[in-house]
Amino acid sequence: MTNHRIRDDYQSVRKYSEDLCAPLETEDYIPQPVPFVSPPKWHLAHSTWFFETFILKQFKPGYQEYDPDFNYLFNSYYNNIGERTLRTDRGNVTRPTTKAVYAYRQHVDRCMVELLESEQDEHTLSLVTLGLHHEQQHQELLVTDIKYILGHNPLFPVYKENHNLLSGKNTDTGFLKISEGVYDIGFAGDGFCFDNELGRHKVFLHEFEISKSPVTTGEYIEFMNAGGYSDFNLWLDEGWSWVNENSIQSPMYWHKVKGEWHYYTLAGLQKVDPYAILGHVSYYEAAAFAQWKQMRLPTEFEWEIASVNLDWGQRWEWTNSAYLPYPGFSKAPGAVGEYNGKFMINQMVLRGASVATSPNHARRTYRNFFHAPERWQYTGIRLAK
Amino acid sequence: MTNHRIRDDYQSVRKYSEDLCAPLETEDYIPQPVPFVSPPKWHLAHSTWFFETFILKQFKPGYQEYDPDFNYLFNSYYNNIGERTLRTDRGNVTRPTTKAVYAYRQHVDRCMVELLESEQDEHTLSLVTLGLHHEQQHQELLVTDIKYILGHNPLFPVYKENHNLLSGKNTDTGFLKISEGVYDIGFAGDGFCFDNELGRHKVFLHEFEISKSPVTTGEYIEFMNAGGYSDFNLWLDEGWSWVNENSIQSPMYWHKVKGEWHYYTLAGLQKVDPYAILGHVSYYEAAAFAQWKQMRLPTEFEWEIASVNLDWGQRWEWTNSAYLPYPGFSKAPGAVGEYNGKFMINQMVLRGASVATSPNHARRTYRNFFHAPERWQYTGIRLAK
Amino acid sequence: MTNHRIRDDYQSVRKYSEDLCAPLETEDYIPQPVPFVSPPKWHLAHSTWFFETFILKQFKPGYQEYDPDFNYLFNSYYNNIGERTLRTDRGNVTRPTTKAVYAYRQHVDRCMVELLESEQDEHTLSLVTLGLHHEQQHQELLVTDIKYILGHNPLFPVYKENHNLLSGKNTDTGFLKISEGVYDIGFAGDGFCFDNELGRHKVFLHEFEISKSPVTTGEYIEFMNAGGYSDFNLWLDEGWSWVNENSIQSPMYWHKVKGEWHYYTLAGLQKVDPYAILGHVSYYEAAAFAQWKQMRLPTEFEWEIASVNLDWGQRWEWTNSAYLPYPGFSKAPGAVGEYNGKFMINQMVLRGASVATSPNHARRTYRNFFHAPERWQYTGIRLAK
Amino acid sequence: MTNHRIRDDYQSVRKYSEDLCAPLETEDYIPQPVPFVSPPKWHLAHSTWFFETFILKQFKPGYQEYDPDFNYLFNSYYNNIGERTLRTDRGNVTRPTTKAVYAYRQHVDRCMVELLESEQDEHTLSLVTLGLHHEQQHQELLVTDIKYILGHNPLFPVYKENHNLLSGKNTDTGFLKISEGVYDIGFAGDGFCFDNELGRHKVFLHEFEISKSPVTTGEYIEFMNAGGYSDFNLWLDEGWSWVNENSIQSPMYWHKVKGEWHYYTLAGLQKVDPYAILGHVSYYEAAAFAQWKQMRLPTEFEWEIASVNLDWGQRWEWTNSAYLPYPGFSKAPGAVGEYNGKFMINQMVLRGASVATSPNHARRTYRNFFHAPERWQYTGIRLAK
Repeated sequence: MTNHRIRDDYQSVRKYSEDLCAPLETEDYIPQPVPFVSPPKWHLAHSTWFFETFILKQFKPGYQEYDPDFNYLFNSYYNNIGERTLRTDRGNVTRPTTKAVYAYRQHVDRCMVELLESEQDEHTLSLVTLGLHHEQQHQELLVTDIKYILGHNPLFPVYKENHNLLSGKNTDTGFLKISEGVYDIGFAGDGFCFDNELGRHKVFLHEFEISKSPVTTGEYIEFMNAGGYSDFNLWLDEGWSWVNENSIQSPMYWHKVKGEWHYYTLAGLQKVDPYAILGHVSYYEAAAFAQWKQMRLPTEFEWEIASVNLDWGQRWEWTNSAYLPYPGFSKAPGAVGEYNGKFMINQMVLRGASVATSPNHARRTYRNFFHAPERWQYTGIRLAK
Repeated sequence: MTNHRIRDDYQSVRKYSEDLCAPLETEDYIPQPVPFVSPPKWHLAHSTWFFETFILKQFKPGYQEYDPDFNYLFNSYYNNIGERTLRTDRGNVTRPTTKAVYAYRQHVDRCMVELLESEQDEHTLSLVTLGLHHEQQHQELLVTDIKYILGHNPLFPVYKENHNLLSGKNTDTGFLKISEGVYDIGFAGDGFCFDNELGRHKVFLHEFEISKSPVTTGEYIEFMNAGGYSDFNLWLDEGWSWVNENSIQSPMYWHKVKGEWHYYTLAGLQKVDPYAILGHVSYYEAAAFAQWKQMRLPTEFEWEIASVNLDWGQRWEWTNSAYLPYPGFSKAPGAVGEYNGKFMINQMVLRGASVATSPNHARRTYRNFFHAPERWQYTGIRLAK
Repeated sequence: MTNHRIRDDYQSVRKYSEDLCAPLETEDYIPQPVPFVSPPKWHLAHSTWFFETFILKQFKPGYQEYDPDFNYLFNSYYNNIGERTLRTDRGNVTRPTTKAVYAYRQHVDRCMVELLESEQDEHTLSLVTLGLHHEQQHQELLVTDIKYILGHNPLFPVYKENHNLLSGKNTDTGFLKISEGVYDIGFAGDGFCFDNELGRHKVFLHEFEISKSPVTTGEYIEFMNAGGYSDFNLWLDEGWSWVNENSIQSPMYWHKVKGEWHYYTLAGLQKVDPYAILGHVSYYEAAAFAQWKQMRLPTEFEWEIASVNLDWGQRWEWTNSAYLPYPGFSKAPGAVGEYNGKFMINQMVLRGASVATSPNHARRTYRNFFHAPERWQYTGIRLAK
Repeated sequence: MTNHRIRDDYQSVRKYSEDLCAPLETEDYIPQPVPFVSPPKWHLAHSTWFFETFILKQFKPGYQEYDPDFNYLFNSYYNNIGERTLRTDRGNVTRPTTKAVYAYRQHVDRCMVELLESEQDEHTLSLVTLGLHHEQQHQELLVTDIKYILGHNPLFPVYKENHNLLSGKNTDTGFLKISEGVYDIGFAGDGFCFDNELGRHKVFLHEFEISKSPVTTGEYIEFMNAGGYSDFNLWLDEGWSWVNENSIQSPMYWHKVKGEWHYYTLAGLQKVDPYAILGHVSYYEAAAFAQWKQMRLPTEFEWEIASVNLDWGQRWEWTNSAYLPYPGFSKAPGAVGEYNGKFMINQMVLRGASVATSPNHARRTYRNFFHAPERWQYTGIRLAK
């Protein structure tokens, strides 16, 4: 990829983060209501810090650190880079202000554009590309974290009218049959991918069938009405504890108002549309629903092979595969190697992409991963048998 | 007190809350870093809600509730008034915005002034007066909560230059001797007092001596240098656990920078002044320091009797009295009765007032109370023997 | 007191601990179901360790430590004596066996009797006396801890037939009036007392009335039937949280069986006797009940003065006094000084004695103390007004 | 299998549980020091309850329940069978006594033998066989739970002289190479297996090498000496938190005594033998060690295929496979179906068997599973590349 192409990408990706924040009030940039949600201000600063730390400080001659405190404040989890704010304290950091963070972005953007207008070697460019994909990941988190902050406010404020990301509908029905065989799995090609997609390798798949479309809210309401949340036989043991300890009765963001199910959307509280694709379910709920249907979730390998013939991109779809290294996976030395490998335990793989995923960020080989109870992402269910 | 006098008081007290917030950035209004600290925005709204709920809704003919959600959002702990935001969730409520809260204040203030310009009966006026003292209590919390939020930010931002509330010095030395006898304790007179000061009663005091001035940082550093934080014989058993579980080595806000003790003040990080009056110590620390001095803390009764002859008003001074009802204490029916009585367990009484106490809010009979480990208030030590 | 008298006391007190354990199975000696309950084996060993550590090792020429590990295992909370088993781990220590602990008792008893048969100075004898009172305190804990262990077993095993310590009934009715005046409080005389009873001093009491008899289960059932556990206005704020977080609906050990209230007693599960004196209530419950009766609990000073004219000894009676030092209280140097003083925070004083108190262990000036939620002791309520 | 053969197996398996407990003192049967360790008495009772509940009550005509309380006390996790003692409360149940539990065993054994001496259909016999394998699983837990209870006692008591289960040494060196291909995985044959081994299916394996012998303590000490526990780059993110929050410095049961590493064994505290096979490591430690060696752990499929040519049976070997269902896995209806399937989340598969595994209980296709931090089992490491 040429410098200029990357410079343009840089500018458009960076702008998109700010566009996502445009509807916010200053107050909305601050809180961290639960440890897994980060404040929007933090996302804006952290993705900037990434470029400053891994590109400007390394490759821009004479670059002066913008503010030494920012390294402490906006490092996320890179032990190789040093001490950082406790993850659970991000919501208490009122200074630098949001305005100051935007100024930090402008400064870094100016320096980055300068750098990208001069010739750079491939290693630098590949790190810039990584930084852009990194920022795109934070863009999806921005959407879901903003939704969490606004959606847990008793006033149910509107983020943007007509911005109900749950409204996508299924376009096809029935099951797709895939025949038995040895298949190739993992990224192949020239473009960008994350290290966890590499180590392309062969996997034997038995014949299976996979649903052409993800589960709708209407189908899920049938499960709820059939007592799905109170029949322990449907649940994983951990899932059953999760249901009971948290008094779970529905997907996240659902509220019963005057006897009817509503859900919070970025366009405000709305009546649940039974034809809409289900979102905001945990792995536990996905597994229980599949059990109730006497089917199962696909593995990530089945999903990858079938995906050639499926529409997708509405929801991150829980698979029945744990997030583990592919054969031959190895992590890069230093901080960049902390990107994916160290999280390969006790998480489940999700495949696809969601309505909140940034443009051009999806790939059939993309391996997303979350913990089983997490459901503030746009997570959904596709069945296999 | 006449209506007009109360109206003027109302306006000046209400303005003072906003003055205290003038140096803040919008971001600073939001967080609740620990459960006992409330967001400044919440203080501004809650003290307004108090007037709306207990005065306007009761006594202003035709008053329309400003926003029904605010009752849920800004009730603090009045069970008689209904459901409320969980105390630990106050920092996640970004809407209504700070600006909207200021608009709420203006609306309520306009209505209150209208009401106070017409004749009101004594009961109404006494509730208004209670509301003003309530707001003054929140003003002191505003100062200490703002200090907590800024003082735990790694950037140690300045609230206001020259606003080091720790700088007060002692004006007198030696001990005051009070002779044995039966003394009267509790509020007497016509002005305002809280219900917990009532039930004036007699207490027998043995002869005692009380220090004419509170302990300085310099004296406390001697205790620290003598190993006070590592000698378990000086500590209450609970205090010793508190020291160890929290790795306590100094008063709150103290930091050792290049070998020298500094403390965060509202004017920023400063070198500790050894002549300044000590602040931000817990009851445990106060008790351990007294033990080290082979003295003790005064009881609240000793303090009240001695205070006639003492300067005070720099620090809330820990006494060796638990917060319990005076003989004859009774609480008012309904929500107003929840003000003090229900907290009379497992807290210690502090007497005096602090540099953060609002003007005209102090009384010799005032009974402040906090839990033994709490020290984000301007708390200090006065010795007795 | 002569050596011989003390030797006889020693033998009878020590035997009584073992008598209390006679009905136990070996298994019952082991568990610690909650941190505040200690295993019976631990009580037997710890009270023995007290004599070995504070008497034999100090004063018996040539005494050899029985087992160096026991110092670690059976120290309770004396920091001056060194490291010890974590309080919460006492229930995991299966070795030394119960039999080995009895052998340890025999060894120490033999050495103690030898020592007491030779002349000893007053200091030594006073420490032996302290050790005996210490063992008597553990005897009461033995009773209540055994009750906790058996009473939380789903089989409700019988400790001893006819051993229902709750059956005591009231013998008198009405209120006793005490007139206003200055009274002397604290221990006077030659016999034994704990350090916390010393510092005899004067207290002014206003006229008050105190019930001639403690509250019965029948009276308490009226409170329950009147919705006492669901009316927040009756409760301290902390108490109301305690009720809700622990789903408290009745005193400890009460169970509703086929619509009728039963309680576990040491003689097994029995129907609640409405004329029996109420037991096993927390300070929170005592305070809420008093509030419901529109009365209050007496202070420990009122109690001490009134007690001359009261029967008592059925229940430890919660007072409205916090456990704090008397004026002039000072603690002994070293480990013995850790006995009482370091617990003088966040506990409430109970006066009287209970049916589980060892013979000759009660005094009118005795200051017992527990945390507000604790109720596994035989705690009851006496009203004042 | 004939009735008689099963009756003999029944008697020998049941006797072996009691043999394992023969060296215990009564006290050792009681505690549950951590939630994942069960009291030996509970194991003896629960495995008996299994036969009573699933065989005698179903298939023995006229069988009378031994004690209705036992169903509540000794059910482990079968929701289909009803309420049960909280898992964390098992250590507080002193009654029924150990002696009474042995009587319960005798009663059930007598009835079982009677039943097995008459003709039984295949379904009944297969449930008996399941019960025996279930009891064998509890036998291994008996060994490891007894080790936990004794090994955390400060006296380090000896279970049995010469019973150091850690002493096994490696018999072979070097790596075994397995060539690429499609292999069959899962149980095939007539004998017993658990439901999680079924669903025999094909898996494609790339060429790999696997160590002929598991890692020794000596090799692990090299990792420790090289700073393995303090180099975050070697650890999974969760593992690094686990190391720091628990101050992990060595495998479980290791103690440094006068500068030399010792470990607790069932024969008491002993110097670490560097040629002994490493045991008692968590998945986190296994993964960090492999990372340090620049190798990896084998998958459970690689392990199963390679195992034909490996000695094994010394340690449960952590694999890099999550515990998930095989394609075609389905669980039986009712309580028996709760055996395995509901635990298929957030656990890792271990393969092999250990020195504590009961005779005839091992299979090449056996899938054991534990949570990543657990290491009180005889867990070890085998490397692959």
